[in-house]
Amino acid sequence: MALIVQKYGGTSVANVEKIKNVADRVIKEYKKGRQIVVVVSAMGDATDQLVELVGKVASNPDPREVDMLLTTGEQVSIALLSMAIQAKGYQAISLTGSQVKITTDNRHNRAEIMKIDNARILTELKAGKIVVVAGFQGINTLDDFTTLGRGGSDTTAVAIAASLGAKRCELYSDVDGIYTTDPRMIAKARKLTSISYQEMLEMANLGAKVLHPRSVELAKHYQIKLYIASSFNYHPGTTVEGMDEMEKRKNVTGVTCDKNEVKITVQEVPDHPGIAGQLFNNLAKYGINVDMIIQNLQRNNKNDITFTISKEDLLKGKKYITEIAQGLGSSRVEIDPTVAKVSIIGAGMITTPGIAAKMFTALGQAQINIQMITTSDIKVSVLINEELAEQAVHVLHDCFELAGETGDWQEQAK
Amino acid sequence: MALIVQKYGGTSVANVEKIKNVADRVIKEYKKGRQIVVVVSAMGDATDQLVELVGKVASNPDPREVDMLLTTGEQVSIALLSMAIQAKGYQAISLTGSQVKITTDNRHNRAEIMKIDNARILTELKAGKIVVVAGFQGINTLDDFTTLGRGGSDTTAVAIAASLGAKRCELYSDVDGIYTTDPRMIAKARKLTSISYQEMLEMANLGAKVLHPRSVELAKHYQIKLYIASSFNYHPGTTVEGMDEMEKRKNVTGVTCDKNEVKITVQEVPDHPGIAGQLFNNLAKYGINVDMIIQNLQRNNKNDITFTISKEDLLKGKKYITEIAQGLGSSRVEIDPTVAKVSIIGAGMITTPGIAAKMFTALGQAQINIQMITTSDIKVSVLINEELAEQAVHVLHDCFELAGETGDWQEQAK
Repeated sequence: MALIVQKYGGTSVANVEKIKNVADRVIKEYKKGRQIVVVVSAMGDATDQLVELVGKVASNPDPREVDMLLTTGEQVSIALLSMAIQAKGYQAISLTGSQVKITTDNRHNRAEIMKIDNARILTELKAGKIVVVAGFQGINTLDDFTTLGRGGSDTTAVAIAASLGAKRCELYSDVDGIYTTDPRMIAKARKLTSISYQEMLEMANLGAKVLHPRSVELAKHYQIKLYIASSFNYHPGTTVEGMDEMEKRKNVTGVTCDKNEVKITVQEVPDHPGIAGQLFNNLAKYGINVDMIIQNLQRNNKNDITFTISKEDLLKGKKYITEIAQGLGSSRVEIDPTVAKVSIIGAGMITTPGIAAKMFTALGQAQINIQMITTSDIKVSVLINEELAEQAVHVLHDCFELAGETGDWQEQAK
Repeated sequence: MALIVQKYGGTSVANVEKIKNVADRVIKEYKKGRQIVVVVSAMGDATDQLVELVGKVASNPDPREVDMLLTTGEQVSIALLSMAIQAKGYQAISLTGSQVKITTDNRHNRAEIMKIDNARILTELKAGKIVVVAGFQGINTLDDFTTLGRGGSDTTAVAIAASLGAKRCELYSDVDGIYTTDPRMIAKARKLTSISYQEMLEMANLGAKVLHPRSVELAKHYQIKLYIASSFNYHPGTTVEGMDEMEKRKNVTGVTCDKNEVKITVQEVPDHPGIAGQLFNNLAKYGINVDMIIQNLQRNNKNDITFTISKEDLLKGKKYITEIAQGLGSSRVEIDPTVAKVSIIGAGMITTPGIAAKMFTALGQAQINIQMITTSDIKVSVLINEELAEQAVHVLHDCFELAGETGDWQEQAK
């Protein structure tokens, strides 16, 4: 019997009516003779409300207790969804992360799944039940509840699909697929029929918030086809899958824009070997992830080292950065949050030379100055002034002819 | 090191400010050098809100899924209380029923505790932590979450005290002790300094809603002293303990009033042996608990059998009652919900004759007609017209001189 794993995000189960809608959708698949595991997130902004409650109680809360609190969010939605399915005459059972034994490491608030024991799920499936599993949560080896971080329900769904040997995992939310770029920014954005794991991974990492990067990595590793679609309609979504099945007409598949980085310049560091290594080793020690890097030799044998980090890491590590820089003999640290990283992504880049040059030329013609550049096999990212971000995405979306004849987005909005 | 178990009810943790107040009270005890286990209920009306949510999803919900939903209530409050204690600079850890391994039977929504594994609690206590445990909930042998029914947190607290060998269990709520009768009904009601397990058990069973009867049974069995007091002040409360330490000045300790019963009369049942047995056996089969019973021989060799059951059981079993009565040849079933059961309770009754007579005389002088009577060693209950209930409680409270010189209740209200 075909087994399918479906995940419904918070907006898809935001209230009782929407939960009943999900019940209908799940039952529709069940009636096709499929075994179904449904992974759900907490209702709407339930998690945000719980986080707000934490803020009223403690300014520096114990991550273990935060997880104790947050895991109630999904427990509420799995119970209600099971009841809704049962009320429509079908058998269902809800299971928390601890009941499924989704074992994670001990890093509260951002745990990683280590193992899933599928015995209980299999027993319930065999009994003919629709199995409803709490996303986002697991249990560590101390028997304490953990959470996987924002977007963790995607990872739960893919990990369960992997553990059950399912070949397909459907991820439903209020977003109806993967677009060539953010359709709220560019009305001409086109919904993609399919995209490769690698491209999806780059897009997720580069600011497209539809999918959690870890879930894409897992899907790639276990070769599980992902299907991204909306729970509010039956419009075709986007399939994330292996390269061979890809649409290869375009060199560039998408354009992303990430405004979550800040540019940091450590000025006038003495120019001797190993100094950059020292700087970045020290930053890593404090858990600060560096993204883009450039180094400029100044007059007087001093270097300016410029790099970008996320805004969260800046909050967390600002004081360490200054200390480290001073320790290396830097005269000054400059922090510029008014930047945006705009990227083009496409598996076709590997075999097509000149894509990066075409990108830089297009931006230059639009008078958009490039501050930093990074590239990989299938993406080119540039750091530019934040105010020009939207214009840059427009320019690149046009330059690489990503728009469809009729934008799906507009069609949808009707 | 002295170990103490404290329980805080829903009103005591109804909001963030009240949770912080509980944190202060707990820390105050901890600073005396005691090991502390705190059992908490769900915040304020959280459980009612969850039940309301169930009503919107399913009319006949799976009790297992209801428990899955309801157990989130206490999980929220234990996490927040732990954070609040930590924020004040003390070590704390929250544990759910499943983490403590409070093993219950499989009767969802009204499970009974079978076993408590105190290993985790002991480990955390030994590490110097204040241990915060979710009340009301457990886990069955299938690894599914169960709840103990309304008032179940009392039972959790006493059961944990028993499993840890604690000699004292403090139960805090918005009620500041056990009164001679409901102080909201009789302003002259007096707060008792102490009361025996047996009396408390009768009062709890007879409608005094301060304590869950099962918690009193457990405390009696394990000889754990209960202390009932308010979490909003430090006024002395009531101790529930063994007989030898009791104040024995009064023959009657308290008066209760229970409006939760209905009187059912099965009319004109053929008068032959075994017919009453048949009736009550059949009712028991459907889980309908019968309280008071009388049988009147009518003319023409027919009997009227009258009994009382709770309003919940009537809802649940109305159709069975009619079927059973018809099966026995009854001509008609009469249901009268306008009744109240008023009781006097006192351990001193055993050794003092004439208490019941004094009760009946006092009610007779007040023109209050008695419809049914039941007695035990330490209580006498009468069924009367519901409209006269308050007057009857007044009459009996005066007749047995239960009022204090100054009513604690009024003092409190100032």
